[in-house]
Amino acid sequence: MTTPRALAIVAGLGPGISYGLAQKFATAYDLILLARSTNTLDPLISKLKSDPAIKYLKSVPTIVGIPTDVTSIESLSATVARVREMGRPVTLAVYNVSSGFKRSPFLEIDLKDIENGFKSGGFGGAVFAKAVLPLLLDSVGKVTWESGERVNPTLLYTGATASFKANPGMSAFAMGKWSLRALSQSLAREFGPQGVHVATVNIDAIVDLERSKSILADVEDGKLKPAEVAETYWDLHRQGRSSWTWEVDVRPWVEKW
Amino acid sequence: MTTPRALAIVAGLGPGISYGLAQKFATAYDLILLARSTNTLDPLISKLKSDPAIKYLKSVPTIVGIPTDVTSIESLSATVARVREMGRPVTLAVYNVSSGFKRSPFLEIDLKDIENGFKSGGFGGAVFAKAVLPLLLDSVGKVTWESGERVNPTLLYTGATASFKANPGMSAFAMGKWSLRALSQSLAREFGPQGVHVATVNIDAIVDLERSKSILADVEDGKLKPAEVAETYWDLHRQGRSSWTWEVDVRPWVEKW
Amino acid sequence: MTTPRALAIVAGLGPGISYGLAQKFATAYDLILLARSTNTLDPLISKLKSDPAIKYLKSVPTIVGIPTDVTSIESLSATVARVREMGRPVTLAVYNVSSGFKRSPFLEIDLKDIENGFKSGGFGGAVFAKAVLPLLLDSVGKVTWESGERVNPTLLYTGATASFKANPGMSAFAMGKWSLRALSQSLAREFGPQGVHVATVNIDAIVDLERSKSILADVEDGKLKPAEVAETYWDLHRQGRSSWTWEVDVRPWVEKW
Amino acid sequence: MTTPRALAIVAGLGPGISYGLAQKFATAYDLILLARSTNTLDPLISKLKSDPAIKYLKSVPTIVGIPTDVTSIESLSATVARVREMGRPVTLAVYNVSSGFKRSPFLEIDLKDIENGFKSGGFGGAVFAKAVLPLLLDSVGKVTWESGERVNPTLLYTGATASFKANPGMSAFAMGKWSLRALSQSLAREFGPQGVHVATVNIDAIVDLERSKSILADVEDGKLKPAEVAETYWDLHRQGRSSWTWEVDVRPWVEKW
Repeated sequence: MTTPRALAIVAGLGPGISYGLAQKFATAYDLILLARSTNTLDPLISKLKSDPAIKYLKSVPTIVGIPTDVTSIESLSATVARVREMGRPVTLAVYNVSSGFKRSPFLEIDLKDIENGFKSGGFGGAVFAKAVLPLLLDSVGKVTWESGERVNPTLLYTGATASFKANPGMSAFAMGKWSLRALSQSLAREFGPQGVHVATVNIDAIVDLERSKSILADVEDGKLKPAEVAETYWDLHRQGRSSWTWEVDVRPWVEKW
Repeated sequence: MTTPRALAIVAGLGPGISYGLAQKFATAYDLILLARSTNTLDPLISKLKSDPAIKYLKSVPTIVGIPTDVTSIESLSATVARVREMGRPVTLAVYNVSSGFKRSPFLEIDLKDIENGFKSGGFGGAVFAKAVLPLLLDSVGKVTWESGERVNPTLLYTGATASFKANPGMSAFAMGKWSLRALSQSLAREFGPQGVHVATVNIDAIVDLERSKSILADVEDGKLKPAEVAETYWDLHRQGRSSWTWEVDVRPWVEKW
Repeated sequence: MTTPRALAIVAGLGPGISYGLAQKFATAYDLILLARSTNTLDPLISKLKSDPAIKYLKSVPTIVGIPTDVTSIESLSATVARVREMGRPVTLAVYNVSSGFKRSPFLEIDLKDIENGFKSGGFGGAVFAKAVLPLLLDSVGKVTWESGERVNPTLLYTGATASFKANPGMSAFAMGKWSLRALSQSLAREFGPQGVHVATVNIDAIVDLERSKSILADVEDGKLKPAEVAETYWDLHRQGRSSWTWEVDVRPWVEKW
Repeated sequence: MTTPRALAIVAGLGPGISYGLAQKFATAYDLILLARSTNTLDPLISKLKSDPAIKYLKSVPTIVGIPTDVTSIESLSATVARVREMGRPVTLAVYNVSSGFKRSPFLEIDLKDIENGFKSGGFGGAVFAKAVLPLLLDSVGKVTWESGERVNPTLLYTGATASFKANPGMSAFAMGKWSLRALSQSLAREFGPQGVHVATVNIDAIVDLERSKSILADVEDGKLKPAEVAETYWDLHRQGRSSWTWEVDVRPWVEKW
C-alpha cells in the first residue's frame, strides 16, 4: 500500500502477462486498465474482481477499465484526462502491448504489417510515454510505501526475444520491438535523473495461456507464468533509486537460448 | 568491372557518404542514384560526371538519377520498373537514407518526428528491400567479376551510433535506426541462404562535410571521410560468400567511444 | 525462512555489496561467509552479529566465517567439506569477488595484474562454481519457503560496468569481468534445465562506502547502496522457475550511461 | 607493397585461417610467422614458399618462421628482439591463436582447461600486444603504400562465435575468447588515438580444412575459406584512419545464426 493510495496503469490488458500484473499491482494500488474495447476489458475486469487473489485483500482495490487506443494520442489523452480527474497520484505505468506476429517470408509481408509492428511497438510506447510521463513526474517525491520509503514512479515496457534478435521472417515484429527497446533506453537515460524509473522486461519465452496449452504440455513450468513474471515487474518498481535496473530478461528454466 | 555490366542503386543521394559510394561504385558499375527531388539529384550528378575520379575512368559509367520517394512503395516501384527496362542485372543496392535529427527533451518531441524517424529508418529500409530484393535475387549466379569470380548481389544499409545506443533526447532517431538494424539482421538471415548478402555499416562518427567543417577542425582525419568509408562498403560487396559479414562499425581513429 | 533451514554462501565478504547481501540473506538463511583472511572476516562478522537488522530478527541466524582462497580449488574444497559436515542444504551462493583495479596505460600494466584480473574474475568464478554447484544440485526440489513454494537453488555473480565495456587502460579488470560474464552465461544455459538458477548482476555504479564518501557527496542516492542492491539479488533468488532472469544491470538514478 | 618494405607478423600459424593470411599478406609484406614448434612451422613455410600465389609474385617475399610460445613474454620478447634486428618497420600483426575446444559438462571440465582457454585467449593476446605494440607504434607515420598513402599499423585479433555467446559446456573456450574481445576493445580505444588500428574478426563458422572435410560436404562454400576471410583482415588493415572498424563478424552464406 502506498500513501496516498496511488494508481497503477496497465496498457494492453489481456489474459496473459497483463492479467498477472493486475493481480499483483492490486495488492498495493488501485488499477486503471486499458484495452482497445470493452469487449476485452469487461470480462477480464469481472474476472479480476472475483479473483480470490484480489477479493480477499484487506483493502479491496478499485479497478477501472477505460477503452483506449494506446497508439492514438487523442484517445490516450482523453484517458489521461479521466485519470487526472480522479485526483490521485500515478506511480506505476506499464506498456504491455503487442501486435500478434506470424513468421512469413519477407517478400510476402504486407507493409501494413510493418507499420502495425511499429505502431504497437516503439510508436505506441512513445505515445503512452507522452501521456503518462507527466503524471509520473508529478508524483516524484510525493508518495510513500507503508514503511515510509519513497515510491519511485516507474514506467515499464514489455519486450520479447524479438527485442534483441531479429529472426528470418520476423522483421515486422522485430522492427517494432527493437524500436521499443530503443525508446525505453533513451527514456531511462532522460527520466532517471528526473526521478522516474524506466525499465524493460524482455520475455524470452512462450507465455502459459489457455491458447498455448498444447505447447510443452509435459514440461512443468516450461512456459512463463504471468503470476511469476509479475513479481519481476513488481521488483523493478520496488528498487531503491540508488540501484535501478534498465533491462531484465526472463525465460523458463528449461528454455534453450 | 562486372560481366555483364551491372547496375548499382544508391538510395539517399547527398553530399556525404552516398557521394563517396557513387564515386567508388562507378569504378565497376553503372549507377542509379535516388533522391527525393531533382533539385538534389541534378547538381550532384553533374558534379559526379565531372569528378576526376570518374571522368578519367577507362570505362566511363552511365549515371542515372531518378527522383524517388524511397518511403513510398508506389514511387519505388515506378523506379524499379524503369530500372528493369534497362535490361541489366542489379547486383548492388544501398539504402543510405536518414532523417535529420535534433536532440530534444522527449516531452517536446512531436509524434510526427517519431513517425518520420521510422519512415526513413526501418520502414523505408523495408520498402527499399521489397523493391530491390527481386532484382538482386534475379542476379544471383549470373554476373561475374573480371577475374571470373561470381558477383554476390548485395544489399547494404547505413546505420549510426543511434543504431545500437539510444541517448537521451534521441528517441525519434534511435527508434528508426534500431528498427533498421533489426530489419537488416532479419534480412541477412533470410536472404543469405538465397545468395543475397545483406549487411550494415554503423557510422559512429561525424561525417566530413562542408557543413561540419568547423567541428574538430584541427584534428587531421578526425571526421569520417566519405571516400574512405566507401571502401568498406565496397569490401563488404566483394566478400566471398564463404565469409560474409553482417555488421561493421566505423569511426575515426581519434573517436572516443 | 526455508524448510529445512538452508545455508547461503557469500564469497568475497567485504564492507560493500557483500555486507548488504549478508544482511538481507540473514532474514531467511544461516550464513557461510568467505574471505581470504580472518582479519577481514572477524570484524565484519562481529558487525553483522550486532547489526540491528540481524540481531532483532525473530530467528537469529547462525553466521559462520571461513577463511578461504576462492581462487584455489583446494582451499574451496576444504571449505565445502566443512559446509557439508553441517548437514544442511545450500540453496544460495554468491560470488562477489573482485580484484581492485586501476586505470593505467596498457604498456605499463604488469602481466601479473592481467593474471590476477582473470583469477578473481572468470577463473575464481569457475572454481567457486565447481565447489558449490554440487551442493546446489543436491538441494533441487528439497527445500521450500514458508509459503510451501519450492526454493530454487541459485548461483549469483557480481559483474561490473567492465563486464560489458572495456575502456582504455582497463584491460586487466575487463578481461576478468568479461570472462566471468561468459562463465555465468554458459552455466545459466547448462544448469537452468537441471534446476539451478544462475544469474549475474552488473554493477554500473560507484558503491556507497566509507572510502567513496567524498565522491558525489552532494547527490542523494547518487552511489549504489549495498542494502538496496541486495534486494535485487534477493529478487533473483525468489523468481519462480517459469520466469528466470540471467542478467540485470543496476545503477543509481542519476548515473550517465 | 609498402615503402620501405615492412614486416607482417602472424602468431599462431596453422593450416587454416593463418595460412590464408600469410598468402594474402605476402603480396605486400615480408612475413614473420610464429608457432610453438618448428614441426608446425617448417612444413607450412615450405608449402607457402612453393605456393603459386606466392612464388610467382613480382616481388617474392621473405618468409621467416620463428618458434615462439606466444603466451610467454620471455619467448615473445626474444622473437621481437630478432625482428628488431632485421631493422624493418612492422605495420601488421595478427594474433590468431586458439586453444582447441571440446564441449563437455562443466563439472567435468578440468581447471587446467580453463587456464589454457585464458592463456591462448585474453592472456596470450595481451602478451602479444605487449610485444608488438612498441613495434607498431614505432611505425606510425613512417610507411606508405605504393600509392603514397600512409600505412596504418594494425593489430588484429581472431575471435569466434564463442567471443560473444557462451554455450553450455563451452565455458573454458568462451571465457578465453570473451576476455580476448575485451582486450581488443580496450586496446582499440587506447591505441587508436595513437595511430595504431586494433580490430577483431569473429569467425562464426566452421573453417574449411582438411580435417573438416566431411562436415557440410555437399554445401558449396558452406564452410569459411581461409583465402576469403583473409581478404577481410586485409580490408581492415587497408582502412583509412578516418574510418576504422573495431569488429566484424564473418560466416558462410548458408549459416544459421
